[in-house]
Amino acid sequence: MNKQQLFEQIQRKKSFLCIGLDPVLDKLPKHLLKYEDPILEFNKQLIDATHDLCVAYKPNTAFYETRGVKGWSTLVKTWQHFPKDVFTIADAKRGDIGNTSAMYAEAFFNEASSEMSFDSVTVAPYMGRDSVSPFLSYEDKWVILLALTSNEGSKDFQTKQSDDQKLYEQVITTSSQWASSEQMMYVVGATKPEEFQNIRRLAPDNFLLVPGVGAQGGSLSAVCEHGLNLQCGLLVNAARSIIYAGSGEDFAEKAREEALALQQEMEQILTAAQLI
Amino acid sequence: MNKQQLFEQIQRKKSFLCIGLDPVLDKLPKHLLKYEDPILEFNKQLIDATHDLCVAYKPNTAFYETRGVKGWSTLVKTWQHFPKDVFTIADAKRGDIGNTSAMYAEAFFNEASSEMSFDSVTVAPYMGRDSVSPFLSYEDKWVILLALTSNEGSKDFQTKQSDDQKLYEQVITTSSQWASSEQMMYVVGATKPEEFQNIRRLAPDNFLLVPGVGAQGGSLSAVCEHGLNLQCGLLVNAARSIIYAGSGEDFAEKAREEALALQQEMEQILTAAQLI
Repeated sequence: MNKQQLFEQIQRKKSFLCIGLDPVLDKLPKHLLKYEDPILEFNKQLIDATHDLCVAYKPNTAFYETRGVKGWSTLVKTWQHFPKDVFTIADAKRGDIGNTSAMYAEAFFNEASSEMSFDSVTVAPYMGRDSVSPFLSYEDKWVILLALTSNEGSKDFQTKQSDDQKLYEQVITTSSQWASSEQMMYVVGATKPEEFQNIRRLAPDNFLLVPGVGAQGGSLSAVCEHGLNLQCGLLVNAARSIIYAGSGEDFAEKAREEALALQQEMEQILTAAQLI
Repeated sequence: MNKQQLFEQIQRKKSFLCIGLDPVLDKLPKHLLKYEDPILEFNKQLIDATHDLCVAYKPNTAFYETRGVKGWSTLVKTWQHFPKDVFTIADAKRGDIGNTSAMYAEAFFNEASSEMSFDSVTVAPYMGRDSVSPFLSYEDKWVILLALTSNEGSKDFQTKQSDDQKLYEQVITTSSQWASSEQMMYVVGATKPEEFQNIRRLAPDNFLLVPGVGAQGGSLSAVCEHGLNLQCGLLVNAARSIIYAGSGEDFAEKAREEALALQQEMEQILTAAQLI
Protein backbone atom coordinates (compact mmCIF):
# COMPACT_ATOMS: atom_id res chain seq x y z
CA MET A 1 0.00 0.00 0.00
CA ASN A 2 1.49 3.38 -0.92
CA LYS A 3 1.20 6.65 0.98
CA GLN A 4 -1.68 8.07 -1.01
CA GLN A 5 -3.65 4.83 -0.65
CA LEU A 6 -3.00 4.84 3.09
CA PHE A 7 -4.29 8.41 3.39
CA GLU A 8 -7.38 7.43 1.37
CA GLN A 9 -8.06 4.58 3.80
CA ILE A 10 -7.73 7.02 6.69
CA GLN A 11 -10.23 9.36 5.04
CA ARG A 12 -12.62 6.56 4.17
CA LYS A 13 -12.60 4.98 7.61
CA LYS A 14 -12.26 8.32 9.45
CA SER A 15 -9.62 6.63 11.57
CA PHE A 16 -5.87 6.40 11.94
CA LEU A 17 -6.07 3.59 14.44
CA CYS A 18 -3.60 0.71 14.37
CA ILE A 19 -4.45 -2.32 16.48
CA GLY A 20 -1.58 -4.24 18.02
CA LEU A 21 -2.16 -7.98 17.89
CA ASP A 22 0.05 -9.06 20.77
CA PRO A 23 -1.76 -12.06 22.22
CA VAL A 24 -0.62 -14.00 25.27
CA LEU A 25 -2.17 -17.45 25.70
CA ASP A 26 -2.74 -17.01 29.45
CA LYS A 27 -4.78 -13.85 28.89
CA LEU A 28 -7.12 -15.27 26.27
CA PRO A 29 -10.84 -15.76 26.98
CA LYS A 30 -11.12 -19.29 28.31
CA HIS A 31 -13.69 -20.48 25.78
CA LEU A 32 -11.10 -20.09 23.00
CA LEU A 33 -8.86 -22.77 24.48
CA LYS A 34 -11.00 -25.46 22.85
CA TYR A 35 -9.78 -24.37 19.39
CA GLU A 36 -6.78 -26.08 17.83
CA ASP A 37 -5.04 -22.69 17.60
CA PRO A 38 -6.65 -20.43 20.22
CA ILE A 39 -4.46 -17.43 19.40
CA LEU A 40 -5.38 -17.60 15.72
CA GLU A 41 -9.06 -17.77 16.63
CA PHE A 42 -8.60 -14.81 18.98
CA ASN A 43 -6.90 -12.78 16.23
CA LYS A 44 -9.47 -13.70 13.59
CA GLN A 45 -12.41 -12.70 15.76
CA LEU A 46 -10.67 -9.43 16.70
CA ILE A 47 -9.96 -8.65 13.05
CA ASP A 48 -13.51 -9.49 11.98
CA ALA A 49 -14.90 -7.23 14.72
CA THR A 50 -12.66 -4.20 14.15
CA HIS A 51 -11.40 -3.98 10.55
CA ASP A 52 -13.83 -1.22 9.56
CA LEU A 53 -12.61 0.94 12.46
CA CYS A 54 -8.86 0.74 12.00
CA VAL A 55 -6.47 1.31 9.10
CA ALA A 56 -3.65 -0.94 10.30
CA TYR A 57 -2.88 -4.11 12.23
CA LYS A 58 0.43 -4.63 13.93
CA PRO A 59 1.30 -8.09 15.22
CA ASN A 60 4.47 -7.97 17.31
CA THR A 61 6.55 -10.98 16.26
CA ALA A 62 7.78 -11.63 19.82
CA PHE A 63 4.33 -12.81 20.86
CA TYR A 64 4.41 -15.46 18.11
CA GLU A 65 8.08 -16.49 18.27
CA THR A 66 7.70 -17.21 21.94
CA ARG A 67 5.63 -20.25 20.94
CA GLY A 68 8.21 -21.50 18.43
CA VAL A 69 7.09 -23.18 15.21
CA LYS A 70 3.44 -23.17 16.35
CA GLY A 71 3.59 -19.45 16.94
CA TRP A 72 5.20 -18.70 13.60
CA SER A 73 2.41 -20.69 11.94
CA THR A 74 -0.15 -18.58 13.82
CA LEU A 75 1.53 -15.42 12.54
CA VAL A 76 1.34 -16.64 8.92
CA LYS A 77 -2.33 -17.58 9.26
CA THR A 78 -3.09 -14.26 10.96
CA TRP A 79 -1.47 -12.43 8.06
CA GLN A 80 -3.59 -14.50 5.65
CA HIS A 81 -6.73 -13.34 7.47
CA PHE A 82 -6.03 -9.60 7.08
CA PRO A 83 -8.47 -7.82 4.75
CA LYS A 84 -6.85 -6.24 1.69
CA ASP A 85 -7.79 -2.69 2.73
CA VAL A 86 -5.69 -2.62 5.90
CA PHE A 87 -2.06 -1.60 6.18
CA THR A 88 -0.10 -4.42 7.81
CA ILE A 89 2.91 -3.94 10.06
CA ALA A 90 5.28 -6.71 11.14
CA ASP A 91 6.51 -5.25 14.41
CA ALA A 92 9.77 -7.16 14.36
CA LYS A 93 12.44 -4.53 15.16
CA ARG A 94 14.93 -6.34 12.96
CA GLY A 95 18.22 -5.09 11.52
CA ASP A 96 21.48 -6.78 10.62
CA ILE A 97 24.35 -6.50 8.14
CA GLY A 98 23.22 -6.05 4.54
CA ASN A 99 23.05 -9.64 3.27
CA THR A 100 21.27 -10.66 6.47
CA SER A 101 18.77 -7.81 6.45
CA ALA A 102 17.96 -8.93 2.91
CA MET A 103 16.90 -12.27 4.42
CA TYR A 104 14.69 -10.49 6.95
CA ALA A 105 13.16 -8.46 4.14
CA GLU A 106 12.27 -11.72 2.38
CA ALA A 107 10.84 -13.07 5.61
CA PHE A 108 8.37 -10.23 5.92
CA PHE A 109 7.84 -9.01 2.35
CA ASN A 110 8.24 -11.99 0.00
CA GLU A 111 5.21 -14.25 0.13
CA ALA A 112 6.84 -16.80 -2.18
CA SER A 113 9.56 -17.30 0.40
CA SER A 114 7.80 -17.05 3.75
CA GLU A 115 4.04 -17.17 2.96
CA MET A 116 3.70 -13.62 4.30
CA SER A 117 3.91 -10.19 2.72
CA PHE A 118 3.37 -7.36 5.16
CA ASP A 119 3.20 -3.77 3.95
CA SER A 120 5.88 -2.74 6.40
CA VAL A 121 8.33 -3.88 9.03
CA THR A 122 9.76 -2.09 12.04
CA VAL A 123 13.56 -1.85 11.94
CA ALA A 124 16.13 -0.88 14.60
CA PRO A 125 18.56 1.80 13.38
CA TYR A 126 21.65 0.91 15.43
CA MET A 127 23.51 -0.86 12.60
CA GLY A 128 23.03 1.98 10.11
CA ARG A 129 22.26 2.37 6.46
CA ASP A 130 23.16 -1.03 5.00
CA SER A 131 21.06 -2.72 7.69
CA VAL A 132 18.02 -0.73 6.55
CA SER A 133 18.41 -0.42 2.78
CA PRO A 134 17.56 -4.05 1.83
CA PHE A 135 14.03 -3.48 3.13
CA LEU A 136 13.70 -0.47 0.80
CA SER A 137 14.14 -2.44 -2.42
CA TYR A 138 10.53 -3.67 -2.39
CA GLU A 139 8.04 -1.44 -4.19
CA ASP A 140 5.30 0.02 -2.00
CA LYS A 141 6.80 -1.64 1.07
CA TRP A 142 7.84 0.41 4.06
CA VAL A 143 10.50 0.61 6.72
CA ILE A 144 9.24 1.89 10.07
CA LEU A 145 12.43 2.93 11.82
CA LEU A 146 12.68 3.14 15.60
CA ALA A 147 13.29 6.77 16.53
CA LEU A 148 11.97 7.68 19.99
CA THR A 149 10.36 4.69 21.64
CA SER A 150 7.70 4.71 24.34
CA ASN A 151 9.62 2.87 27.05
CA GLU A 152 11.70 4.03 30.01
CA GLY A 153 14.89 2.73 28.35
CA SER A 154 14.52 5.29 25.54
CA LYS A 155 16.40 7.64 27.90
CA ASP A 156 19.48 5.43 27.95
CA PHE A 157 20.71 6.25 24.44
CA GLN A 158 18.00 7.76 22.22
CA THR A 159 17.94 11.15 23.93
CA LYS A 160 21.71 11.51 24.40
CA GLN A 161 23.03 14.67 22.80
CA SER A 162 25.81 14.68 20.21
CA ASP A 163 26.73 17.37 17.62
CA ASP A 164 23.78 19.46 18.84
CA GLN A 165 21.38 16.61 18.15
CA LYS A 166 19.91 13.87 20.24
CA LEU A 167 20.54 10.38 18.91
CA TYR A 168 16.91 9.92 17.84
CA GLU A 169 17.12 13.23 15.95
CA GLN A 170 20.25 12.02 14.19
CA VAL A 171 18.44 8.82 13.30
CA ILE A 172 15.64 10.79 11.65
CA THR A 173 17.96 13.29 9.93
CA THR A 174 20.38 10.68 8.63
CA SER A 175 17.82 8.08 7.59
CA SER A 176 15.75 10.64 5.72
CA GLN A 177 18.58 10.54 3.18
CA TRP A 178 18.05 6.81 2.69
CA ALA A 179 14.41 6.91 1.63
CA SER A 180 11.63 9.42 1.08
CA SER A 181 8.46 9.68 3.12
CA GLU A 182 6.91 7.30 0.57
CA GLN A 183 8.80 4.39 2.12
CA MET A 184 9.98 5.50 5.55
CA MET A 185 7.97 5.97 8.72
CA TYR A 186 9.26 6.49 12.26
CA VAL A 187 8.27 4.99 15.58
CA VAL A 188 7.62 7.75 18.12
CA GLY A 189 6.09 6.87 21.46
CA ALA A 190 2.88 8.54 22.58
CA THR A 191 4.45 8.87 26.00
CA LYS A 192 6.59 11.73 24.65
CA PRO A 193 4.00 14.24 23.32
CA GLU A 194 6.35 17.17 24.04
CA GLU A 195 8.72 15.86 21.36
CA PHE A 196 6.24 15.81 18.48
CA GLN A 197 6.71 19.46 17.50
CA ASN A 198 10.43 18.86 17.20
CA ILE A 199 9.92 15.61 15.29
CA ARG A 200 7.61 17.27 12.80
CA ARG A 201 10.34 19.84 12.16
CA LEU A 202 12.71 17.01 11.19
CA ALA A 203 10.17 14.79 9.45
CA PRO A 204 7.31 16.96 8.21
CA ASP A 205 5.99 14.51 5.63
CA ASN A 206 6.61 11.10 7.16
CA PHE A 207 4.00 8.95 8.76
CA LEU A 208 4.72 8.28 12.43
CA LEU A 209 3.76 5.02 14.07
CA VAL A 210 2.79 5.95 17.61
CA PRO A 211 2.58 3.23 20.23
CA GLY A 212 1.86 3.92 23.86
CA VAL A 213 -1.75 5.12 23.80
CA GLY A 214 -3.88 3.10 26.19
CA ALA A 215 -2.12 0.70 28.57
CA GLN A 216 1.16 2.67 28.42
CA GLY A 217 -0.60 5.93 29.33
CA GLY A 218 -0.12 8.17 26.26
CA SER A 219 -2.77 10.72 25.27
CA LEU A 220 -4.27 10.78 21.76
CA SER A 221 -5.08 14.49 21.76
CA ALA A 222 -1.60 15.43 22.99
CA VAL A 223 -0.02 13.38 20.20
CA CYS A 224 -2.24 14.93 17.55
CA GLU A 225 -1.68 18.51 18.65
CA HIS A 226 1.68 18.64 16.88
CA GLY A 227 1.78 15.23 15.21
CA LEU A 228 -0.82 15.65 12.47
CA ASN A 229 0.29 16.69 8.99
CA LEU A 230 -1.50 17.28 5.69
CA GLN A 231 -1.98 13.57 5.06
CA CYS A 232 -2.76 12.84 8.72
CA GLY A 233 0.74 11.38 9.09
CA LEU A 234 -0.10 9.33 12.17
CA LEU A 235 -0.85 5.70 12.83
CA VAL A 236 -1.72 5.49 16.50
CA ASN A 237 -1.42 2.03 17.96
CA ALA A 238 -3.37 0.54 20.81
CA ALA A 239 -2.99 -3.09 21.77
CA ARG A 240 -3.79 -4.28 25.27
CA SER A 241 -6.58 -1.73 25.89
CA ILE A 242 -8.45 -3.11 22.85
CA ILE A 243 -7.61 -6.80 22.61
CA TYR A 244 -8.17 -7.44 26.32
CA ALA A 245 -11.16 -5.08 26.70
CA GLY A 246 -13.26 -8.14 27.49
CA SER A 247 -12.37 -11.55 28.81
CA GLY A 248 -15.58 -13.47 28.13
CA GLU A 249 -17.32 -14.86 25.07
CA ASP A 250 -18.11 -11.29 24.03
CA PHE A 251 -14.44 -10.26 23.97
CA ALA A 252 -14.60 -9.26 20.30
CA GLU A 253 -17.63 -7.01 20.88
CA LYS A 254 -15.84 -5.38 23.82
CA ALA A 255 -12.78 -4.88 21.64
CA ARG A 256 -14.99 -3.29 18.99
CA GLU A 257 -16.47 -0.90 21.56
CA GLU A 258 -12.98 0.17 22.61
CA ALA A 259 -11.83 0.55 18.99
CA LEU A 260 -15.01 2.49 18.17
CA ALA A 261 -14.38 4.94 21.00
CA LEU A 262 -10.91 5.63 19.64
CA GLN A 263 -12.17 5.84 16.05
CA GLN A 264 -14.80 8.39 17.08
CA GLU A 265 -12.21 10.46 18.89
CA MET A 266 -10.02 10.27 15.77
CA GLU A 267 -12.93 11.28 13.52
CA GLN A 268 -13.41 14.43 15.59
CA ILE A 269 -9.70 15.20 15.36
CA LEU A 270 -9.63 14.62 11.58
CA THR A 271 -12.72 16.77 11.13
CA ALA A 272 -11.32 19.60 13.23
CA ALA A 273 -8.11 19.45 11.20
CA GLN A 274 -10.16 19.54 7.96
CA LEU A 275 -8.58 16.29 6.79
CA ILE A 276 -11.96 14.68 6.12
CA MET B 1 26.88 -22.54 30.16
CA ASN B 2 28.60 -20.15 32.56
CA LYS B 3 31.78 -18.17 31.98
CA GLN B 4 34.12 -20.60 33.71
CA GLN B 5 32.65 -23.52 31.77
CA LEU B 6 33.07 -21.61 28.53
CA PHE B 7 36.73 -20.92 29.30
CA GLU B 8 37.22 -24.61 30.14
CA GLN B 9 35.80 -25.56 26.75
CA ILE B 10 38.18 -23.11 25.10
CA GLN B 11 41.11 -24.68 26.94
CA ARG B 12 39.99 -28.23 26.20
CA LYS B 13 39.39 -27.64 22.50
CA LYS B 14 42.28 -25.16 22.14
CA SER B 15 39.90 -23.02 20.16
CA PHE B 16 37.73 -19.94 20.49
CA LEU B 17 36.06 -20.47 17.15
CA CYS B 18 32.37 -19.81 16.66
CA ILE B 19 30.81 -21.12 13.46
CA GLY B 20 28.00 -19.09 11.93
CA LEU B 21 25.27 -21.33 10.55
CA ASP B 22 23.76 -18.97 7.98
CA PRO B 23 22.63 -21.29 5.19
CA VAL B 24 21.08 -20.13 1.95
CA LEU B 25 19.22 -22.79 -0.03
CA ASP B 26 20.66 -21.66 -3.38
CA LYS B 27 24.23 -22.08 -2.13
CA LEU B 28 23.83 -25.60 -0.77
CA PRO B 29 25.62 -28.56 -2.34
CA LYS B 30 23.21 -29.91 -4.93
CA HIS B 31 23.16 -33.48 -3.58
CA LEU B 32 21.46 -32.22 -0.40
CA LEU B 33 18.37 -31.09 -2.27
CA LYS B 34 17.05 -34.67 -2.21
CA TYR B 35 16.53 -34.45 1.55
CA GLU B 36 13.18 -33.37 2.96
CA ASP B 37 14.91 -30.49 4.78
CA PRO B 38 18.16 -29.78 2.90
CA ILE B 39 19.20 -26.95 5.21
CA LEU B 40 18.81 -29.13 8.29
CA GLU B 41 20.91 -31.86 6.66
CA PHE B 42 23.53 -29.26 5.72
CA ASN B 43 23.66 -27.97 9.29
CA LYS B 44 23.79 -31.45 10.83
CA GLN B 45 26.67 -32.57 8.64
CA LEU B 46 28.53 -29.31 9.34
CA ILE B 47 28.02 -29.71 13.09
CA ASP B 48 29.10 -33.37 13.03
CA ALA B 49 32.25 -32.46 11.09
CA THR B 50 33.34 -29.46 13.19
CA HIS B 51 32.09 -29.68 16.78
CA ASP B 52 35.45 -30.75 18.21
CA LEU B 53 37.12 -27.70 16.63
CA CYS B 54 34.81 -24.93 17.74
CA VAL B 55 33.35 -23.81 21.06
CA ALA B 56 30.23 -22.12 19.73
CA TYR B 57 27.63 -22.22 16.97
CA LYS B 58 25.73 -19.15 15.93
CA PRO B 59 22.72 -19.56 13.65
CA ASN B 60 21.50 -16.20 12.45
CA THR B 61 17.71 -16.28 12.72
CA ALA B 62 17.23 -14.26 9.50
CA PHE B 63 18.40 -17.20 7.41
CA TYR B 64 15.64 -19.36 8.95
CA GLU B 65 12.82 -16.82 9.17
CA THR B 66 13.19 -16.10 5.50
CA ARG B 67 11.65 -19.53 4.86
CA GLY B 68 8.73 -18.94 7.20
CA VAL B 69 7.34 -21.80 9.27
CA LYS B 70 9.59 -24.33 7.50
CA GLY B 71 12.64 -22.28 8.35
CA TRP B 72 11.67 -21.88 12.00
CA SER B 73 11.26 -25.66 12.19
CA THR B 74 14.76 -26.07 10.73
CA LEU B 75 16.12 -23.74 13.42
CA VAL B 76 14.50 -25.77 16.20
CA LYS B 77 15.85 -29.05 14.79
CA THR B 78 19.29 -27.51 14.31
CA TRP B 79 19.28 -26.44 17.95
CA GLN B 80 18.29 -29.98 18.95
CA HIS B 81 21.33 -31.32 17.08
CA PHE B 82 23.89 -29.18 18.95
CA PRO B 83 26.18 -31.20 21.22
CA LYS B 84 25.95 -30.32 24.92
CA ASP B 85 29.54 -29.06 25.09
CA VAL B 86 29.10 -26.15 22.68
CA PHE B 87 27.97 -22.66 23.54
CA THR B 88 24.95 -21.75 21.44
CA ILE B 89 24.14 -18.28 20.18
CA ALA B 90 20.81 -17.23 18.68
CA ASP B 91 21.97 -14.35 16.52
CA ALA B 92 18.62 -12.61 16.51
CA LYS B 93 19.46 -8.97 17.30
CA ARG B 94 16.15 -8.58 19.14
CA GLY B 95 15.08 -5.88 21.57
CA ASP B 96 11.71 -4.33 22.44
CA ILE B 97 9.84 -2.80 25.38
CA GLY B 98 10.10 -4.85 28.57
CA ASN B 99 7.05 -7.10 28.38
CA THR B 100 7.83 -7.82 24.74
CA SER B 101 11.51 -8.54 25.29
CA ALA B 102 10.33 -11.03 27.92
CA MET B 103 8.52 -12.85 25.09
CA TYR B 104 11.71 -12.89 23.01
CA ALA B 105 13.61 -14.25 25.99
CA GLU B 106 11.12 -17.11 26.19
CA ALA B 107 11.47 -17.69 22.46
CA PHE B 108 15.20 -18.28 22.74
CA PHE B 109 15.73 -19.46 26.31
CA ASN B 110 12.63 -21.37 27.43
CA GLU B 111 12.49 -24.82 25.86
CA ALA B 112 9.05 -25.53 27.35
CA SER B 113 7.67 -22.60 25.38
CA SER B 114 9.55 -22.68 22.07
CA GLU B 115 11.37 -26.06 21.97
CA MET B 116 14.70 -24.20 22.01
CA SER B 117 17.01 -23.04 24.75
CA PHE B 118 20.10 -21.29 23.46
CA ASP B 119 22.87 -20.21 25.85
CA SER B 120 22.73 -16.67 24.55
CA VAL B 121 20.98 -14.24 22.26
CA THR B 122 22.26 -11.15 20.48
CA VAL B 123 20.34 -8.01 21.44
CA ALA B 124 20.25 -4.51 19.92
CA PRO B 125 20.81 -1.76 22.51
CA TYR B 126 18.82 1.09 20.96
CA MET B 127 15.79 0.73 23.25
CA GLY B 128 17.84 0.73 26.45
CA ARG B 129 17.82 -1.07 29.74
CA ASP B 130 14.28 -2.42 30.00
CA SER B 131 14.62 -3.92 26.52
CA VAL B 132 17.67 -5.89 27.65
CA SER B 133 16.95 -6.83 31.26
CA PRO B 134 14.28 -9.52 30.61
CA PHE B 135 16.96 -11.64 28.94
CA LEU B 136 19.09 -11.41 32.08
CA SER B 137 16.60 -13.11 34.36
CA TYR B 138 17.60 -16.58 33.14
CA GLU B 139 20.41 -18.27 35.08
CA ASP B 140 23.56 -18.99 33.05
CA LYS B 141 22.00 -17.40 29.98
CA TRP B 142 23.70 -14.52 28.24
CA VAL B 143 22.94 -11.28 26.44
CA ILE B 144 25.36 -10.48 23.64
CA LEU B 145 24.79 -6.78 23.09
CA LEU B 146 25.60 -5.07 19.79
CA ALA B 147 28.40 -2.58 20.42
CA LEU B 148 30.55 -1.94 17.33
CA THR B 149 29.36 -4.02 14.41
CA SER B 150 31.40 -5.16 11.42
CA ASN B 151 29.40 -3.45 8.68
CA GLU B 152 29.80 -0.15 6.86
CA GLY B 153 26.66 1.22 8.53
CA SER B 154 28.35 1.06 11.94
CA LYS B 155 29.70 4.53 11.05
CA ASP B 156 26.23 6.03 10.82
CA PHE B 157 25.50 6.10 14.56
CA GLN B 158 27.76 3.78 16.58
CA THR B 159 30.87 5.92 16.27
CA LYS B 160 29.19 9.31 16.74
CA GLN B 161 30.68 11.23 19.64
CA SER B 162 28.63 12.54 22.58
CA ASP B 163 29.75 13.55 26.09
CA ASP B 164 33.34 12.57 25.15
CA GLN B 165 32.22 9.07 24.24
CA LYS B 166 31.24 7.41 21.02
CA LEU B 167 27.80 5.82 21.07
CA TYR B 168 29.21 2.27 21.13
CA GLU B 169 31.39 3.25 24.11
CA GLN B 170 28.32 4.60 25.89
CA VAL B 171 26.54 1.33 25.15
CA ILE B 172 29.34 -0.64 26.81
CA THR B 173 29.74 1.74 29.76
CA THR B 174 26.03 2.03 30.47
CA SER B 175 25.11 -1.62 29.93
CA SER B 176 27.95 -2.83 32.13
CA GLN B 177 25.80 -1.50 34.99
CA TRP B 178 22.97 -3.83 33.96
CA ALA B 179 24.85 -7.12 34.20
CA SER B 180 28.29 -8.44 35.05
CA SER B 181 30.66 -10.13 32.62
CA GLU B 182 29.07 -13.41 33.76
CA GLN B 183 26.00 -12.63 31.68
CA MET B 184 26.95 -9.91 29.21
CA MET B 185 29.07 -10.14 26.09
CA TYR B 186 29.52 -7.55 23.35
CA VAL B 187 29.54 -7.81 19.58
CA VAL B 188 32.64 -6.13 18.17
CA GLY B 189 33.45 -6.54 14.49
CA ALA B 190 36.81 -7.96 13.44
CA THR B 191 36.90 -5.27 10.78
CA LYS B 192 37.73 -2.72 13.51
CA PRO B 193 40.93 -4.16 15.11
CA GLU B 194 42.16 -0.66 16.02
CA GLU B 195 39.25 -0.32 18.46
CA PHE B 196 39.99 -3.42 20.54
CA GLN B 197 42.48 -1.74 22.88
CA ASN B 198 39.90 0.90 23.69
CA ILE B 199 37.14 -1.70 24.11
CA ARG B 200 39.25 -3.75 26.52
CA ARG B 201 39.70 -0.59 28.61
CA LEU B 202 35.90 -0.34 28.91
CA ALA B 203 35.15 -4.06 29.15
CA PRO B 204 38.22 -5.84 30.48
CA ASP B 205 36.46 -8.99 31.65
CA ASN B 206 33.65 -9.47 29.13
CA PHE B 207 33.69 -11.97 26.35
CA LEU B 208 33.50 -10.33 22.92
CA LEU B 209 31.73 -12.00 20.03
CA VAL B 210 33.75 -11.06 16.98
CA PRO B 211 32.19 -11.50 13.54
CA GLY B 212 33.89 -10.42 10.36
CA VAL B 213 36.85 -12.82 10.14
CA GLY B 214 36.85 -14.59 6.77
CA ALA B 215 34.44 -13.40 4.10
CA GLN B 216 34.19 -9.90 5.63
CA GLY B 217 37.99 -9.48 5.63
CA GLY B 218 38.89 -9.19 9.34
CA SER B 219 42.23 -10.54 10.63
CA LEU B 220 42.39 -13.02 13.53
CA SER B 221 45.83 -11.97 14.75
CA ALA B 222 44.94 -8.27 14.68
CA VAL B 223 41.84 -8.96 16.77
CA CYS B 224 43.78 -11.03 19.30
CA GLU B 225 46.60 -8.52 19.76
CA HIS B 226 44.46 -6.39 22.09
CA GLY B 227 41.31 -8.51 22.35
CA LEU B 228 42.53 -11.44 24.48
CA ASN B 229 42.05 -11.34 28.23
CA LEU B 230 42.85 -13.74 31.08
CA GLN B 231 39.98 -16.06 30.17
CA CYS B 232 40.56 -15.67 26.44
CA GLY B 233 37.54 -13.36 26.28
CA LEU B 234 36.96 -13.85 22.56
CA LEU B 235 34.58 -15.88 20.46
CA VAL B 236 35.63 -15.33 16.87
CA ASN B 237 32.96 -16.12 14.35
CA ALA B 238 33.43 -17.33 10.80
CA ALA B 239 30.47 -18.33 8.67
CA ARG B 240 30.67 -18.23 4.88
CA SER B 241 34.39 -19.09 4.70
CA ILE B 242 33.68 -22.35 6.57
CA ILE B 243 30.20 -23.44 5.60
CA TYR B 244 30.75 -22.82 1.89
CA ALA B 245 34.38 -24.03 1.81
CA GLY B 246 33.25 -26.83 -0.49
CA SER B 247 30.26 -27.19 -2.76
CA GLY B 248 30.35 -30.91 -3.50
CA GLU B 249 29.56 -34.09 -1.61
CA ASP B 250 32.69 -33.48 0.49
CA PHE B 251 31.46 -30.05 1.68
CA ALA B 252 31.59 -31.08 5.35
CA GLU B 253 35.21 -32.28 5.02
CA LYS B 254 36.14 -29.01 3.33
CA ALA B 255 34.40 -27.11 6.12
CA ARG B 256 36.37 -29.15 8.64
CA GLU B 257 39.65 -28.29 6.91
CA GLU B 258 38.80 -24.60 7.06
CA ALA B 259 37.74 -24.83 10.71
CA LEU B 260 40.88 -26.83 11.52
CA ALA B 261 43.11 -24.15 10.00
CA LEU B 262 41.45 -21.53 12.19
CA GLN B 263 41.58 -23.78 15.26
CA GLN B 264 45.31 -24.35 14.74
CA GLU B 265 45.93 -20.64 14.40
CA MET B 266 43.93 -20.12 17.60
CA GLU B 267 45.88 -22.84 19.41
CA GLN B 268 49.13 -21.03 18.62
CA ILE B 269 47.66 -17.76 19.87
CA LEU B 270 46.38 -19.35 23.10
CA THR B 271 49.72 -21.04 23.66
CA ALA B 272 51.69 -17.84 23.08
CA ALA B 273 49.39 -16.06 25.54
CA GLN B 274 49.91 -18.89 28.08
CA LEU B 275 46.18 -19.51 28.27
CA ILE B 276 46.59 -23.25 27.60
